Amino acid sequence: MADAKVKEADRVILGIDPGTNVMGYGILGVFGRKPALIAMGVIELKKFEDHYMRLHRIYERVTMLVEQYLPDEMAIEAPFFGKNVQSMLKLGRAQGVAIAAAIARQVPITEYEPRKIKMAITGNGGASKEQVREMLRRMLDIPEASMLPHLDATDALGAALCHFYESAKPLKTKSSASWKDFIAHNPEKVSTGIRRK
Amino acid sequence: MADAKVKEADRVILGIDPGTNVMGYGILGVFGRKPALIAMGVIELKKFEDHYMRLHRIYERVTMLVEQYLPDEMAIEAPFFGKNVQSMLKLGRAQGVAIAAAIARQVPITEYEPRKIKMAITGNGGASKEQVREMLRRMLDIPEASMLPHLDATDALGAALCHFYESAKPLKTKSSASWKDFIAHNPEKVSTGIRRK
Repeated sequence: MADAKVKEADRVILGIDPGTNVMGYGILGVFGRKPALIAMGVIELKKFEDHYMRLHRIYERVTMLVEQYLPDEMAIEAPFFGKNVQSMLKLGRAQGVAIAAAIARQVPITEYEPRKIKMAITGNGGASKEQVREMLRRMLDIPEASMLPHLDATDALGAALCHFYESAKPLKTKSSASWKDFIAHNPEKVSTGIRRK
Repeated sequence: MADAKVKEADRVILGIDPGTNVMGYGILGVFGRKPALIAMGVIELKKFEDHYMRLHRIYERVTMLVEQYLPDEMAIEAPFFGKNVQSMLKLGRAQGVAIAAAIARQVPITEYEPRKIKMAITGNGGASKEQVREMLRRMLDIPEASMLPHLDATDALGAALCHFYESAKPLKTKSSASWKDFIAHNPEKVSTGIRRK
């Protein structure tokens, strides 16, 4: 069952910040050319002691998000360096099941490194998560009461907004832009592949 | 469309050896109490330059295997240590999408570390892949011509056979074993969770 706001949006971007303890998500709607918050939240995984039950939960919940909000694209925050091989294997698995949930519904995926997201939102690749949260709140004009305190949720929303900036072009253009141009500007419209930026 | 042999099997175990260059698989049928090869093969991933296209391919092919062979369980060979964080993240993702393909079809998953598989098949946790291959060929009575040379495929088949040994109990018992005993001996029959051994 799709959200009412989703039906009005010209485009919906699901942002995901996959972790092994908490997975954040943010749903960004694009209305005309204006991005706006549709929903944000976190999937708590700590309550599951078993790492494998967590993967199950991630797959289930991301699938539910895809079915509920019918995103046109998914943007994922994907760190490429970590403390040790054990934590990276677990993080890779969490990313993998989230990616699979999108693949299963033919939702194209683009990955963004944390630095790139911070840069897109705040203009500073080394910004804190709190700064990203505050900039998002202002840019998307979200009342403080509606802004979740969870920095995993705001990070995910940041990934979605970063993807919007990276790919935002008018959906319908009156110019005589060629199909080649369209593909160049909107590769996510013509591919179900996963890209990394 | 399920394979003809699959319909005759009392139980089907899908073994997977997920890698980022090649993914091996082995389908083991259990007929009465006797395990036998149904199919084995490899999913070549090297031809896809893009790591993310590989994930797509893994998800697609594991889903196809699950649909074609209708496995009751999946056994996965899962190393828990690797060279560096980068390779472990990629391996984790490959494992993650394969796991998700099983989760999506409610196929319970059990993981086995390579040492455990080698021990179960050859009696030696430090055995070579070639030794595992040769023991599998003898134990399952596979003609040399039908035995794939790919060590990723034989490793996957080894995971499936290891799982059979770890969990094989008569499906129907005439003893007055309690439900609690049944659960203890056949946890994979009553759970869709993922377990690690």
